[in-house]
Amino acid sequence: MKVGIIGASGYVGGELLRILIGHPNAQLSFATSRRYAGEYVYRIHPNLRGLTTLQFEDHKISIQEDCDFVFVALPHGESVKIIPQLAQTGVKIVDLSADFRLKNPEDYNRWYGYTHLHPDLLPKFVYGVPELHHDQIKNSQLVACPGCMAVTAILALAPVVQSGLIENAHIVVDAKIGSSGAGEKPTIATHHAERAGVVRPYKPAGHRHTVEIEQELSLLTGNSVRISLSAHAVGMVRGILCTCHTFLSKGIEIQDLWKMFRKFYSSSPFIRLIRDVKGIHKFPDPKFVIGSNFCDIGFEIDNHAERLVLLSASDNLMKGAAGSAVQCMNIMFGLDETSGLRSPAIHPV
Amino acid sequence: MKVGIIGASGYVGGELLRILIGHPNAQLSFATSRRYAGEYVYRIHPNLRGLTTLQFEDHKISIQEDCDFVFVALPHGESVKIIPQLAQTGVKIVDLSADFRLKNPEDYNRWYGYTHLHPDLLPKFVYGVPELHHDQIKNSQLVACPGCMAVTAILALAPVVQSGLIENAHIVVDAKIGSSGAGEKPTIATHHAERAGVVRPYKPAGHRHTVEIEQELSLLTGNSVRISLSAHAVGMVRGILCTCHTFLSKGIEIQDLWKMFRKFYSSSPFIRLIRDVKGIHKFPDPKFVIGSNFCDIGFEIDNHAERLVLLSASDNLMKGAAGSAVQCMNIMFGLDETSGLRSPAIHPV
Amino acid sequence: MKVGIIGASGYVGGELLRILIGHPNAQLSFATSRRYAGEYVYRIHPNLRGLTTLQFEDHKISIQEDCDFVFVALPHGESVKIIPQLAQTGVKIVDLSADFRLKNPEDYNRWYGYTHLHPDLLPKFVYGVPELHHDQIKNSQLVACPGCMAVTAILALAPVVQSGLIENAHIVVDAKIGSSGAGEKPTIATHHAERAGVVRPYKPAGHRHTVEIEQELSLLTGNSVRISLSAHAVGMVRGILCTCHTFLSKGIEIQDLWKMFRKFYSSSPFIRLIRDVKGIHKFPDPKFVIGSNFCDIGFEIDNHAERLVLLSASDNLMKGAAGSAVQCMNIMFGLDETSGLRSPAIHPV
Amino acid sequence: MKVGIIGASGYVGGELLRILIGHPNAQLSFATSRRYAGEYVYRIHPNLRGLTTLQFEDHKISIQEDCDFVFVALPHGESVKIIPQLAQTGVKIVDLSADFRLKNPEDYNRWYGYTHLHPDLLPKFVYGVPELHHDQIKNSQLVACPGCMAVTAILALAPVVQSGLIENAHIVVDAKIGSSGAGEKPTIATHHAERAGVVRPYKPAGHRHTVEIEQELSLLTGNSVRISLSAHAVGMVRGILCTCHTFLSKGIEIQDLWKMFRKFYSSSPFIRLIRDVKGIHKFPDPKFVIGSNFCDIGFEIDNHAERLVLLSASDNLMKGAAGSAVQCMNIMFGLDETSGLRSPAIHPV
Repeated sequence: MKVGIIGASGYVGGELLRILIGHPNAQLSFATSRRYAGEYVYRIHPNLRGLTTLQFEDHKISIQEDCDFVFVALPHGESVKIIPQLAQTGVKIVDLSADFRLKNPEDYNRWYGYTHLHPDLLPKFVYGVPELHHDQIKNSQLVACPGCMAVTAILALAPVVQSGLIENAHIVVDAKIGSSGAGEKPTIATHHAERAGVVRPYKPAGHRHTVEIEQELSLLTGNSVRISLSAHAVGMVRGILCTCHTFLSKGIEIQDLWKMFRKFYSSSPFIRLIRDVKGIHKFPDPKFVIGSNFCDIGFEIDNHAERLVLLSASDNLMKGAAGSAVQCMNIMFGLDETSGLRSPAIHPV
Repeated sequence: MKVGIIGASGYVGGELLRILIGHPNAQLSFATSRRYAGEYVYRIHPNLRGLTTLQFEDHKISIQEDCDFVFVALPHGESVKIIPQLAQTGVKIVDLSADFRLKNPEDYNRWYGYTHLHPDLLPKFVYGVPELHHDQIKNSQLVACPGCMAVTAILALAPVVQSGLIENAHIVVDAKIGSSGAGEKPTIATHHAERAGVVRPYKPAGHRHTVEIEQELSLLTGNSVRISLSAHAVGMVRGILCTCHTFLSKGIEIQDLWKMFRKFYSSSPFIRLIRDVKGIHKFPDPKFVIGSNFCDIGFEIDNHAERLVLLSASDNLMKGAAGSAVQCMNIMFGLDETSGLRSPAIHPV
Repeated sequence: MKVGIIGASGYVGGELLRILIGHPNAQLSFATSRRYAGEYVYRIHPNLRGLTTLQFEDHKISIQEDCDFVFVALPHGESVKIIPQLAQTGVKIVDLSADFRLKNPEDYNRWYGYTHLHPDLLPKFVYGVPELHHDQIKNSQLVACPGCMAVTAILALAPVVQSGLIENAHIVVDAKIGSSGAGEKPTIATHHAERAGVVRPYKPAGHRHTVEIEQELSLLTGNSVRISLSAHAVGMVRGILCTCHTFLSKGIEIQDLWKMFRKFYSSSPFIRLIRDVKGIHKFPDPKFVIGSNFCDIGFEIDNHAERLVLLSASDNLMKGAAGSAVQCMNIMFGLDETSGLRSPAIHPV
Repeated sequence: MKVGIIGASGYVGGELLRILIGHPNAQLSFATSRRYAGEYVYRIHPNLRGLTTLQFEDHKISIQEDCDFVFVALPHGESVKIIPQLAQTGVKIVDLSADFRLKNPEDYNRWYGYTHLHPDLLPKFVYGVPELHHDQIKNSQLVACPGCMAVTAILALAPVVQSGLIENAHIVVDAKIGSSGAGEKPTIATHHAERAGVVRPYKPAGHRHTVEIEQELSLLTGNSVRISLSAHAVGMVRGILCTCHTFLSKGIEIQDLWKMFRKFYSSSPFIRLIRDVKGIHKFPDPKFVIGSNFCDIGFEIDNHAERLVLLSASDNLMKGAAGSAVQCMNIMFGLDETSGLRSPAIHPV
């Protein structure tokens, strides 16, 4: 299978390259970058030096006849300009921007500040969470990969929202994310002396991933779900922890939560349920998924406040982006879902 | 004024020493440590080398007649053994453990797992938050310094709880704290290779500071307040951020919140209200208070979810412990509240 | 091929497990730990959760008949007690301690403070640097894996020492290493609050890796080489940078250094020569090898001081330990040297 | 005394502001910034919020008659354009750029790549290391503050170079510096995801501080001293460690080194000699000087290699820049050298 990447010079692009170089069923066909056209890929992604001699090409690419699959890792607002044309060639596409994630075109006006250029395409895209939409992904030409915080929160919340266990109006998602989530462009906000050691609440309200989470959870429960998302930048480079504070609408025991999650994720190879009584991994922590495609999920009941705390941890560049994208590709081609994605996390790192 | 420290070898003790060495009105009289008796203070607190030749003494100390003030920085359960005797000498005391923070003796059974040895002393202690109890502190012999996360959360929540602006049953405090909060004793949980880069939800429910926050906020409002506290270890050494997710019981505008907070803290020199539209300090972030006694407070209204997000940042060893303790001492002796505490934060660090 | 690990609960043991789980030609047969016997491996190495259900066994193991290979990852002084017996079974062994690295038994008295228990075994061990001793490793039953700083320094220095280019009496190796190099046992020196942000010269002189480097380089040149090694703990978890300051005994041009290094490492798949004029990877930096088995090597001529600076970067747990060990195993079994070791570094992390 | 700062928006400017706000004898008169003219100082230096309401002014300033002292913290090449005019007003000046550090005008061509515009002014500047030039500084109108790595290395080497103890042709300075040393301008090299966790040899040879060190040490010994400096970026924000590898030209005992250093620095209040046998501070480490003006110095004899390792640690923004500058100001005004500079380091941080 021949695979191309449009927009391969960013961190998500680099991670796609890293996975695909080691993927047993994919052959890397091309990687584009407007800025670095002509450069060796390893000068921008130095971890790939010695592993590939691929050079970036310019974006203006006519998809070769023998290319079976394209990842589009362009900024929001750029994908929508290129994908309609690409899609007409019949090539399968996973888009990693937000441009095709939302079902309701008006949500783009409200949350992204622009009128969607191709609302007709929105229904053709499947939201790329295999744990929720495996069969749709399998049968689709077009997949929109979720936002990194969105997928991490959705995976923690889906089983309990579906079961009607919690109050839908008081769901708090307190997200903590590493600096790679801000992308590869230097700014004062990402300048090391300013960014090291922060616990910076950069988006206490109004974060765009809110609407994705609401869309997916509302679909699951049939009712409207309201998400209170606050996003914080914290000190590591990779990783997301979502702490989902929810309030129980009925009582439940820990063992029944275990059963609920085990059942919900019984055929999901990248979900690990974490709840230990000793050691250094009692609850999910992004430290233990770095470099892997796992999303670790855990929970704790707070009887004092009739609260259920759901915890989920992922690598924002893997399960939060490139890993999920390749997982979708595997499914779209009938491969083992885990192909090319079985590397354990690096620990300690 | 002659000042002693009982239990001066830990991080809080070290911070008390650092402040008192530079305090214009205090003279450091003694510092005790069972473990390091006889050692120079600067061998345990190497930042003090060249600034003091004090040596640790053993705990078994009869308070000298000329000692006016004692800080007790012993572990929970240890202070309660020593303070009744100390208090009888008439010396003024600030205790930094949890042993005298709670008004209801039964809360010690429930939250700390032991029956309080001297419940008679509990009413004699003032909870050491000058922003709430300035005059009581001034007139008291005995002050119990609050927990680091407790004081940080209380300062963010007090004005809005008092005003009845929010739902008292859905108050989420999502706390993020640096590694110095775990104390100076090495464990696998604080081992650098395991602790670096974590976002570890070490206490998603049942954290002991919950009860302090509820006690103080219930006092303010007259009604019972229920706190949903989850504590996370994050990657820096110092600092706390509390993200308080609350739900509005009535509408309010940002400018009215400004007024409410300005009024509430009009005579509180260590509260800074933070809300900027540009630059690197739009909301509170512990990075900007490191080494200082400030508690930075900010807020954001989430109209989408009828939520009010309150944010507060402090240095857990300063405003969260030693700084508040010295602030109380200043007040108890009629000094300027800020005496010895005016150093700006170090930035960038 | 069936492979066992004796001493698998430390960081090196965990890394051996991580590699072997993904190794196409090896089957993990057992992993021992005195302390954690009976525990699931993934409770100690949480990155392996979901990837193996292996449990630690106690050290007291009679090597099963069908075990072809054993890694011994015990502390210095422990390997020497167990290996003589193991070796007699005929199983191939790579030892990761220092117990069999040195050729001269007296060096153990001088540098390690003990008299070697089995000096007769020393000549039977090959020093496990495939870049220098490939054929000997291939034909040996017993290999002693080098110290992490030793192998990193040796690989930078070998070509220029062999060529007689530098003064042998003024070779300075200034090594910087991450916290995982200190092992998994918590101490005050590795306590996060004390270890974060250090640049701690923990062994300015007398580091034991000195003698390994001298042994190997002296072998290469035929003359005695004197190494001035100083070891520093720095802030990351993984990685080593060796800055080798040497003084030229004759002039040389950069392009001739390139040729010399390219020739010396022409058949070494894990050596990357790094010297770029732009971008973020101009010289070796451990950040770009994390999780991989590469050793990156670079150089710069300082005409002002007639100095040649050689730079080498490795992941101390990979090329500095477990990676080199598996590389040796591959060679000892006639496999492709890179089998199981082709994963790129994770970047950014 | 009224003090102004020209170029106050960078990290060194911010540190000058932090010190001067708390300085008992100085009154902050103005602070300039071309870029931020009109902005409150605390928007750029958020640690100063609540402590000053000063606003930046534009550079084009006619020094007010009542201004007694000016710090110039402009980039190299900018100071030289403004200082000649400033100096004519008779105001005392400490310049923090490199523009007036070197005595030999030709060194600017060689090391900085430009022809000095005012070589006539060079002899009028004293090199601002009070530990070497106290009396000259006292009597001078013009002082050039040293480079951060230069002063840190000079202070470690000065006593042994002066005494003729070491070989002058084999002096290696291996410097490790935090990210604040790169200034406040974001680039890909300082982007958090790229900068976190590095050990980056950014200038293995040819670093400009080389010539400052040689100038000062040659002055001390009367002979030409050749410095082999390599500079590395490491993971913390603040701090420098210089590891100076030198080779003994004659034997010496540790206790004689102690005496030599004690004597040399007998009247230097900011030099601490560090050599402990236990605890966490056996040798200098920048971690223990953060926020203070100390330069910690230590040493170790390597008998094996006839090497003497000298170690020095400083805060690059304090003793390495703003702290030294204020120390010089104090001396130039006959104040206690330590005025405004007595704050201990913050630890742990």
